[in-house]
Amino acid sequence: MKIGFIGLGNMGAPMALNLIKAGHELYVFDVVQKNIDSVLQHSNQKAIASTSLKALAQSKLDLIVTMLPAAQHVRSVYFGSEGILENVAPNTLLIDSSTIDPKTAREVSRAASSKGNAMLDAPVSGGTGGAMAGTLTFMVGGEESVFNANKSFFQHMGKNIFYCGASGNGQVAKVSNNMLLGISMIATAEAMALGVELGMDPKILANIINTSSGRCWSSDTYNPYPGVLENAPASRGYSGGFGADLMLKDLGLAVEAAKDVKQPVMLGGLANQIYQTFSKMGHGHLDFSAVIQLFKK
Amino acid sequence: MKIGFIGLGNMGAPMALNLIKAGHELYVFDVVQKNIDSVLQHSNQKAIASTSLKALAQSKLDLIVTMLPAAQHVRSVYFGSEGILENVAPNTLLIDSSTIDPKTAREVSRAASSKGNAMLDAPVSGGTGGAMAGTLTFMVGGEESVFNANKSFFQHMGKNIFYCGASGNGQVAKVSNNMLLGISMIATAEAMALGVELGMDPKILANIINTSSGRCWSSDTYNPYPGVLENAPASRGYSGGFGADLMLKDLGLAVEAAKDVKQPVMLGGLANQIYQTFSKMGHGHLDFSAVIQLFKK
Amino acid sequence: MKIGFIGLGNMGAPMALNLIKAGHELYVFDVVQKNIDSVLQHSNQKAIASTSLKALAQSKLDLIVTMLPAAQHVRSVYFGSEGILENVAPNTLLIDSSTIDPKTAREVSRAASSKGNAMLDAPVSGGTGGAMAGTLTFMVGGEESVFNANKSFFQHMGKNIFYCGASGNGQVAKVSNNMLLGISMIATAEAMALGVELGMDPKILANIINTSSGRCWSSDTYNPYPGVLENAPASRGYSGGFGADLMLKDLGLAVEAAKDVKQPVMLGGLANQIYQTFSKMGHGHLDFSAVIQLFKK
Amino acid sequence: MKIGFIGLGNMGAPMALNLIKAGHELYVFDVVQKNIDSVLQHSNQKAIASTSLKALAQSKLDLIVTMLPAAQHVRSVYFGSEGILENVAPNTLLIDSSTIDPKTAREVSRAASSKGNAMLDAPVSGGTGGAMAGTLTFMVGGEESVFNANKSFFQHMGKNIFYCGASGNGQVAKVSNNMLLGISMIATAEAMALGVELGMDPKILANIINTSSGRCWSSDTYNPYPGVLENAPASRGYSGGFGADLMLKDLGLAVEAAKDVKQPVMLGGLANQIYQTFSKMGHGHLDFSAVIQLFKK
Repeated sequence: MKIGFIGLGNMGAPMALNLIKAGHELYVFDVVQKNIDSVLQHSNQKAIASTSLKALAQSKLDLIVTMLPAAQHVRSVYFGSEGILENVAPNTLLIDSSTIDPKTAREVSRAASSKGNAMLDAPVSGGTGGAMAGTLTFMVGGEESVFNANKSFFQHMGKNIFYCGASGNGQVAKVSNNMLLGISMIATAEAMALGVELGMDPKILANIINTSSGRCWSSDTYNPYPGVLENAPASRGYSGGFGADLMLKDLGLAVEAAKDVKQPVMLGGLANQIYQTFSKMGHGHLDFSAVIQLFKK
Repeated sequence: MKIGFIGLGNMGAPMALNLIKAGHELYVFDVVQKNIDSVLQHSNQKAIASTSLKALAQSKLDLIVTMLPAAQHVRSVYFGSEGILENVAPNTLLIDSSTIDPKTAREVSRAASSKGNAMLDAPVSGGTGGAMAGTLTFMVGGEESVFNANKSFFQHMGKNIFYCGASGNGQVAKVSNNMLLGISMIATAEAMALGVELGMDPKILANIINTSSGRCWSSDTYNPYPGVLENAPASRGYSGGFGADLMLKDLGLAVEAAKDVKQPVMLGGLANQIYQTFSKMGHGHLDFSAVIQLFKK
Repeated sequence: MKIGFIGLGNMGAPMALNLIKAGHELYVFDVVQKNIDSVLQHSNQKAIASTSLKALAQSKLDLIVTMLPAAQHVRSVYFGSEGILENVAPNTLLIDSSTIDPKTAREVSRAASSKGNAMLDAPVSGGTGGAMAGTLTFMVGGEESVFNANKSFFQHMGKNIFYCGASGNGQVAKVSNNMLLGISMIATAEAMALGVELGMDPKILANIINTSSGRCWSSDTYNPYPGVLENAPASRGYSGGFGADLMLKDLGLAVEAAKDVKQPVMLGGLANQIYQTFSKMGHGHLDFSAVIQLFKK
Repeated sequence: MKIGFIGLGNMGAPMALNLIKAGHELYVFDVVQKNIDSVLQHSNQKAIASTSLKALAQSKLDLIVTMLPAAQHVRSVYFGSEGILENVAPNTLLIDSSTIDPKTAREVSRAASSKGNAMLDAPVSGGTGGAMAGTLTFMVGGEESVFNANKSFFQHMGKNIFYCGASGNGQVAKVSNNMLLGISMIATAEAMALGVELGMDPKILANIINTSSGRCWSSDTYNPYPGVLENAPASRGYSGGFGADLMLKDLGLAVEAAKDVKQPVMLGGLANQIYQTFSKMGHGHLDFSAVIQLFKK
């Protein structure tokens, strides 16, 4: 297929390269020139650099993928006279893999629809590791028939592809899951720190929790206590992984989305502030499991 | 073996009956006569009723199990001139399966030790269902050699038997696990309520979470959203299960234990107050997953 | 002076009427016709109804006051081809008394400035009672010389007129004060409910707090416990006063403003969720001191 | 009067000295000999050192004051064969000025009553400064006639003497007030930090809050932002004042008392954990207003 790809950052670049590897013809664009250069180089010049967003949008593509940092970038890429919606041919499928609030996702989708373009919101999880390995999880919202017709496309970049329902629901699934994750990580940190402070060995405690009702991904796969899991960020100084500032962003989206629908999220709201406190201390670049440092010396 | 069993409530009675089924000779006592009568009846009069705590303690037993509601009852059963420690023969093993704070557990254990009695703290999880089926989880603290010598004994009442380390660590494991559980349940409730309010189908949302990083026991085994899991309390009006007031008790123990060792537990502290709020509204008898009712109409 | 007034709701209408009483010539507009009619009637037809926002903006006024529900309304009134900034004459002073986030206030002010119009953000507190009595508090941000030149103007509508510093700072003062107020009210509710539940008379407790270090406006002027202060909403079924949903809106602004500058607000975040919980239960129309109902039967 | 005084620490010593200055005959005791020596020296040897608690109790006194760190010390001083209740003459008035939980206060009072001794719980606020100046606030629980007969006695040590109702209510008033204070201080810290981060001058912000609805003792008398109030601990590096660890103790009492009566205290519970977090970072010795350091760089 002839594909446009906009947003070649840490996540977008490996996703684009996996599409090229799968045999697709890729037109790429980014506001940062060196991000484009890097994709050209890593693709052995197979990627085709567009000179502008508008030029890319006018390239008669089968579909366009966008992978952008935040809602404001999504708005500026899709809307306006130089944006995708004004310049793209009808019937070009639009896929936004940015993580943004469901309200904006639905607004862009409606606008696309009114121009005759189907759109899917398809945020991912799995981090840069998953993006490189092509094992991302995609949470997809939009028309079910459109999703079914394109499910195999996502498989060039990811492993678990979930259909979440109508437009915006990909973002809803992501924001709900990540709010739960963000809380669970702090909860695991508190439980581990408490148990150890009360005299238990952290590995023994984790083993018991992991076969009991406290079991969660944060305890059994990504335990925040150093030394419990050899391959977790906690055992390598909280480097790599999913940054605390990214979790802060996702919890911000969750709290904002909750506000839009007048939904209370007590632990979600507090967890958001806890990561903000941790970030303010200067630790936002560490893996989010480092939040345990607030609870132990 | 010749065993004493003190505390024949909802949990203790089926545990005692399982020991009788396993062929042990059981001396039983409870301050409530009808609890004794019930065990006599259900054991076809095989259980032997002691006339007092003191009489039971003096019955030359191999071991004594206590299963009591709270630390104050444990103190009054073990201490004082009519209590176990003053009246039991040396070398009788003492096992306390009550869920209490680690500090009291350690204090009783030290007192037992000074009288020449080994003691294990062995709180359980699994509820009355697990007690009846003999599939409880035991978290055991005390001397490792004593634990090893008696591991098979616990298997008459339970399935997963964990050694947690020195005296009191059984309680530490329980309190740490249950604090994490209590938080995770509220977090799952918030995430499910948020996702549904934002437009997702609860079953689809649960499926995605359960294969993603938000995965936890509260979401995949005990989901609080009605209709998601057929066999969860949420799908039968939150009857049965683990009462919100019991979770409130366990979170109270966690917060108190944290205070003793000057350990902050921010989400633990808030979760405690959330269950207290829910209980104050008159819902403490419902399964603890009913806490989701604070977050949805 | 020749004044334009846009937004004639519960707060705006009495403010406009006070300006007319003070002898000003008022051009008024609202998107709801009956709000205009009501001001015409209550002013004995002295107010002059503009037929549109654009017509009002083009009326060669000395200054324009806007009093609108939220940032989105402020944007749509000031921006766009039919909006104030495109149509107003240079040197017309613009005063926005809406309560909105500081970021939007600053953005509108910058846009006004680039068109040659000075602008003050001037949110109020004091409620509809204060608006009618002309005793509002104004918190004003913008050029100090512009503030000084117009301070007397505010005195036609209010009593305490505070200069808060550069543009947007009026909103900053309001959001900071109201976040503190929203938290203090819940804190007072918890303290009063706790003391009474522990056996104290609520009036005696309030008297002690009010002469001690727990003293605050929420305890000494607006006590949430029924019967403590005869004239507080708590003593008349929480009717009248400042609605819980308005406090929820202000805490939402505070949390959002905090997020913009990466400032943690732990109690602010939780207080926001507590009012949201209370509102979800269907009580958002009650005075915000009714939040005590979450903490007492 | 002939008075016994037990507990001669930072608070007790100056209280005892003020009683001597007022002309009373003082029998003093402390488990730390140098505390006794210090009072002897500062009283020019007017104080009379008792050789033991029991000896003091048997000295045929008019009344005994106790001023101890925590409930466990109160129990050990009043109970047991060497304690006050076993050794004191009937009709000796007992006054406990320790800050402890209301439940223990009531238990000790009941025991005293059954021995024929009236008892008042009379915790103080005002710190060591107030103790030295004789300007403490006393919150007194017990029989009203006993309080009235002894009100003037308290005035030798304090300025504001409040009658709070039945036994234990002195502690209830203190715990309720201090919970509100502990929350208000964090709330003020968050509001000040937020306003400054958003661009306001801290003094201007404080001035506005102090004449608005956010007004509280923490903002107008003890503002946590450095430089706002010349005489507040914030303006001298948070030295002196009321230590964060003392506030932590009081919030611990509040949360525990709330648990006893099944009263939810959401902000109280979180505030408790916030001071615990601050203390864990090693700052418990600073004035409690230093908690603002969690919220600003």
